[in-house]
Amino acid sequence: MRAIVLPRFGGPELFEVRDVPTPTPGPGQVLVRVIASGTNPVEAKLRQNGTWAGLQPPVIIGYDASGVIEQVGPGVTEFKPGDEVFYTPEIFHNPHGTYAEFNLVGASIIARKPPSLSHEEAAAVPLAGGTAWEAIVRRLQVRVGETVLIHGGAGGVGSFAVQIAKAAGARVLATSGPDNLETLRRLGADVVINYRGEDPAQVALRETGGQGVDAVFDTAGKNVPASIPATRPFGRIATILGFTGDISAFYSRNIALHGVFLTRERRRLEELTPLLERKLVRPLVEQVLPLEKVADAHRQLDSGHGRGKVVLSVARK
Amino acid sequence: MRAIVLPRFGGPELFEVRDVPTPTPGPGQVLVRVIASGTNPVEAKLRQNGTWAGLQPPVIIGYDASGVIEQVGPGVTEFKPGDEVFYTPEIFHNPHGTYAEFNLVGASIIARKPPSLSHEEAAAVPLAGGTAWEAIVRRLQVRVGETVLIHGGAGGVGSFAVQIAKAAGARVLATSGPDNLETLRRLGADVVINYRGEDPAQVALRETGGQGVDAVFDTAGKNVPASIPATRPFGRIATILGFTGDISAFYSRNIALHGVFLTRERRRLEELTPLLERKLVRPLVEQVLPLEKVADAHRQLDSGHGRGKVVLSVARK
Repeated sequence: MRAIVLPRFGGPELFEVRDVPTPTPGPGQVLVRVIASGTNPVEAKLRQNGTWAGLQPPVIIGYDASGVIEQVGPGVTEFKPGDEVFYTPEIFHNPHGTYAEFNLVGASIIARKPPSLSHEEAAAVPLAGGTAWEAIVRRLQVRVGETVLIHGGAGGVGSFAVQIAKAAGARVLATSGPDNLETLRRLGADVVINYRGEDPAQVALRETGGQGVDAVFDTAGKNVPASIPATRPFGRIATILGFTGDISAFYSRNIALHGVFLTRERRRLEELTPLLERKLVRPLVEQVLPLEKVADAHRQLDSGHGRGKVVLSVARK
Repeated sequence: MRAIVLPRFGGPELFEVRDVPTPTPGPGQVLVRVIASGTNPVEAKLRQNGTWAGLQPPVIIGYDASGVIEQVGPGVTEFKPGDEVFYTPEIFHNPHGTYAEFNLVGASIIARKPPSLSHEEAAAVPLAGGTAWEAIVRRLQVRVGETVLIHGGAGGVGSFAVQIAKAAGARVLATSGPDNLETLRRLGADVVINYRGEDPAQVALRETGGQGVDAVFDTAGKNVPASIPATRPFGRIATILGFTGDISAFYSRNIALHGVFLTRERRRLEELTPLLERKLVRPLVEQVLPLEKVADAHRQLDSGHGRGKVVLSVARK
């Protein structure tokens, strides 16, 4: 099969198109013909050095896919060849990434592709949309009528978080750099905050009459300490990255701080699907590039200025 | 009335017995004849300097009481003179502490004294027992069958936490210095850890087959960073004090970190009462001193080596 191989850790220029053996599904596994693969910041991090995740070059990375089942392994009864599926593969110790024509994956973490989405749209969902779902719905448990501050609302995870929080009935305050404020508005943010010109904590306090927001989702991590005084007593904060700084005020305000790191499962994708089908949540696909242009996609990830997602088109079915 | 007045912030020797005007209950308030007053570490902190809590000397401190209602203010219908009650008054901006013959308090935060407890026992419960209840039951939501690590299990809050977690059906690992290990055993801890000789995180991992405990309650705060690798993925950690140190691993383990600082309410005391009446939870009263010996009680608080509580006997009824 055709695959993008990373021969050693380093820059985007290292990716090579190679012909490699197509894997065969073992018990509980399926082989998916990848139609589209999303790209995510974690992939740039793994490309630089993936030893923390147990990866050893040469390796195929890529952790978002939408495609068609080509073959099922022994014991797989819930899917059959021809089924359209989407999913995010495991990262740790997994040599089977989605920057490839075919991908080997456990059947327990894949779900049926939302019918109304193209493969390019569906491939933009599992990792980023799943992370946003995990943070907003499961951990922060955002409820109708609450006010939520989302740091980095125009990014891959943030753009899903803004839409999910809105769909849940929350009032959404979201931050971005000056270039993405219009994107935030289109995603449905009630209050958009240019973090270069305004202090998000001050805006959050002003918008809540000094009480603080009910919940904060920080897609960058570094905003956690400054968010504590902008969160109401007994409020919740979630982060998908670590941070440094003084957070001692969190205990006197009875705040709960949730660390979020995506685990893989089918159920979360099934929970997201009705929102995707009802168009309450739309993946923000900025660009579709052919698989061979993976280096360009990674240069955009490296720049950190992405608005939504770059999706790789792997095969036309 | 007779009261212990703190004329300025500083050492235990500053406390003075004085005769001061007895306050009169306003709307929604009651006047309580204090029979016993608990003592708590936060009182030593406020004695040293209470400006952070909005206190200005001369002031009467003390934040735990059991006693008898002397007089009710306008609008108070749920209590009448003669009722026995226990409670913990507000700390912030409250000049009415419980180191006094009478105490003025809002009716909404007092509850009926558990009938089977003496006033000295009841006065040891509200602040420390309430904090432990808040952490173990409401925030950590410890469930039957779980394993919980409690740092400082022989202290004021910790001794309640060990008993509450046991009563909830958890397996309890608890730490103390070498002098209090026998106390931990009497409180019901399943595994006692001498924190001077053993690493609690290592013991927690060993006792859970390397998985980590379901929940951690740190009554000292400083143990939070070291507890993260000893907590299972999606586990919970609660602390009643701030801390410094690297906690970035908390996000990759999907851990929830709860800051706990006691708010005042009647309901929590009512929730604790059945456990006290059934003797599933017993206040650990180390010593009862007459009110005039308050300086001795504070010297023990200052030493930080308390086992359970020193209670001040204010009046005999």
